[in-house]
Amino acid sequence: MCTVYLGLDIGGANLKAVALSYSDGKTRIVGSIRRYHPIWIRGIESLKLELENIKRELVDTSSRYAVGVTMTAELSDIFRTKTEGVETITKLVESIYSDATARYYVTVDGSLVEAEKVLLDPIKVAAANWAASGWLLERECSRLNLGNILFIDIGSTTTTIIPIVNCRVRVRGYTDPEKLVYGELVYTGILRGNVATVVDRVPYKGYYARVSSERFALMGDVHLVLGYISNKEYTTETADGRGTSLEEAVARLSRLPCADQNMLGFREIVEIARYIYEKQIERIFDALMQIRSWLVSQNIDLDTFTVVTAGIGEYLAVEACKRAGFTKAISIDEILSAEIAGVLPAYASALMVAEKISGARRP
Amino acid sequence: MCTVYLGLDIGGANLKAVALSYSDGKTRIVGSIRRYHPIWIRGIESLKLELENIKRELVDTSSRYAVGVTMTAELSDIFRTKTEGVETITKLVESIYSDATARYYVTVDGSLVEAEKVLLDPIKVAAANWAASGWLLERECSRLNLGNILFIDIGSTTTTIIPIVNCRVRVRGYTDPEKLVYGELVYTGILRGNVATVVDRVPYKGYYARVSSERFALMGDVHLVLGYISNKEYTTETADGRGTSLEEAVARLSRLPCADQNMLGFREIVEIARYIYEKQIERIFDALMQIRSWLVSQNIDLDTFTVVTAGIGEYLAVEACKRAGFTKAISIDEILSAEIAGVLPAYASALMVAEKISGARRP
Repeated sequence: MCTVYLGLDIGGANLKAVALSYSDGKTRIVGSIRRYHPIWIRGIESLKLELENIKRELVDTSSRYAVGVTMTAELSDIFRTKTEGVETITKLVESIYSDATARYYVTVDGSLVEAEKVLLDPIKVAAANWAASGWLLERECSRLNLGNILFIDIGSTTTTIIPIVNCRVRVRGYTDPEKLVYGELVYTGILRGNVATVVDRVPYKGYYARVSSERFALMGDVHLVLGYISNKEYTTETADGRGTSLEEAVARLSRLPCADQNMLGFREIVEIARYIYEKQIERIFDALMQIRSWLVSQNIDLDTFTVVTAGIGEYLAVEACKRAGFTKAISIDEILSAEIAGVLPAYASALMVAEKISGARRP
Repeated sequence: MCTVYLGLDIGGANLKAVALSYSDGKTRIVGSIRRYHPIWIRGIESLKLELENIKRELVDTSSRYAVGVTMTAELSDIFRTKTEGVETITKLVESIYSDATARYYVTVDGSLVEAEKVLLDPIKVAAANWAASGWLLERECSRLNLGNILFIDIGSTTTTIIPIVNCRVRVRGYTDPEKLVYGELVYTGILRGNVATVVDRVPYKGYYARVSSERFALMGDVHLVLGYISNKEYTTETADGRGTSLEEAVARLSRLPCADQNMLGFREIVEIARYIYEKQIERIFDALMQIRSWLVSQNIDLDTFTVVTAGIGEYLAVEACKRAGFTKAISIDEILSAEIAGVLPAYASALMVAEKISGARRP
């Protein structure tokens, strides 16, 4: 048994960490961290420092502790391949947390392996954060007797969808490209995406104008202008490096049709933002319909599903799911605490390790 | 003064007629007719017979009567040009209703002209049914003190959108092609359109399948399967000439991805229909956003608009307008009677003639 179980979710854009205490199947969160860390900007050295900081902040190394890791940062193009990314990150964790009782890595089939096995088959742990969430959702599904769940997590950058049937994860994709094929991953979120990857035209003074493909504006500008997020929630870099005030977001959006804030007024920009927002929902809707068409082809009754939404873009998920025909939706915050919900894969990773070490069985 | 004012709305797919009595600015509907008449199938001879039937059914020729005509049937490809269509229809009306006190034709600028003028400039009366509706809406706008209206009429085949600012029609397009350019006409409705003109793919067993471009299924099949219309409301021809039962609609939709009812179950077809329905709303949304972007560029406050919905596809209009950011919507049925709403341009044409002949001024 350990005093603390540390869960790490090492993403390309965000680092999340949770320290859990665990006894008799009961958990308590000792501390959690959520830190914006764009690895393609800050680099490996900075990741090393941050992982050291997390250890210092969350772990009392005079007691026994164990670590559970899930990662997606290996997708970053600072690594030549995913394998290189997984290896680099794993070695970093192994070295920084060498004094831990155990270090486990979550695989895409929802189990835990040690570093030795990771290095034999690195792809098995690449982009496995969804599998950690899925593992936790299976438990919650059973606990709450929900039967079938459609889990949808919309973050700053991507949307993850996990169908859970009879309280078992029922995905078709296990790697990122597979998930992109099956609609279980949609590369759209509410902060970081280049708007020009979501729309190819915008309404402009009674016409539609094609858009520049430059990285002039990001989805955060759209959600800010429409009032869905505050500028404090706009935590990522902006496209032009300027601030996150309404005026600055408006200026960035005005560049989409190669105009500027002198050519387009605030109210005109709101209409452009409204259009983009709608097209973003459609992308998620399209993925949901693909998944529904699969589930229904397997004779699974779609009317029995409860949608569980998560992430800072939950409000998008609610709307997209409604359009797709789901009638019941709850937020993960209503099932777990908001603190857990904000660091879900990290929490799940820590809990997986706690149960493995304490010998608890899965329900 | 006449005893009866007959309004005719001679469409390509539908004939609508209203007989009004009018005195001291008060109208009473004596009778109305709404008849499915696909001119490209039934031909000119049949149109002649139907116009004679309408006369017999609605007009007592022993009293004085006058006729107001609006048309869209000239668009049908049984005519080589719109001019040929307008001329043919006008001559038919002139001959059948030769005993009327007066025969007037509604122009795209909302005025009335006689046959002589029609023949000098036929395009002026082509596709002018929206202008008749617009004329009536200006009056209702003033009467109800609404200020700004966005009128949206979704019929069996097309969607017409008319912005009304300070109770005056404020369109940019006056001909069909102009309206298609400006988003004031969207060639989509809830019965007749070929589904393959709305979507180019459908969700199929967990994938997206491209669709056949054959006229295998019509929008009526989609709305029937989703329960938005009953099979009695499915008044137009079906794609395969079979009936309008749920089973027959399902069979037609199954052909979109070149499958059949043995390969796709009912629940799978529902998901396909849901997808198509959503894409249809998006088409209307896109047009609305174009119009909004124009209005806002003219410094017109979009928040002051009341949406007025009309047509058998009103429910689509409500959803599309909500997405486009309009917050107030009422049905034309709440302003006028449902009987009038069902034959709006015909009613408006009759009223225009009544007021012209009785010398009443426009408000």
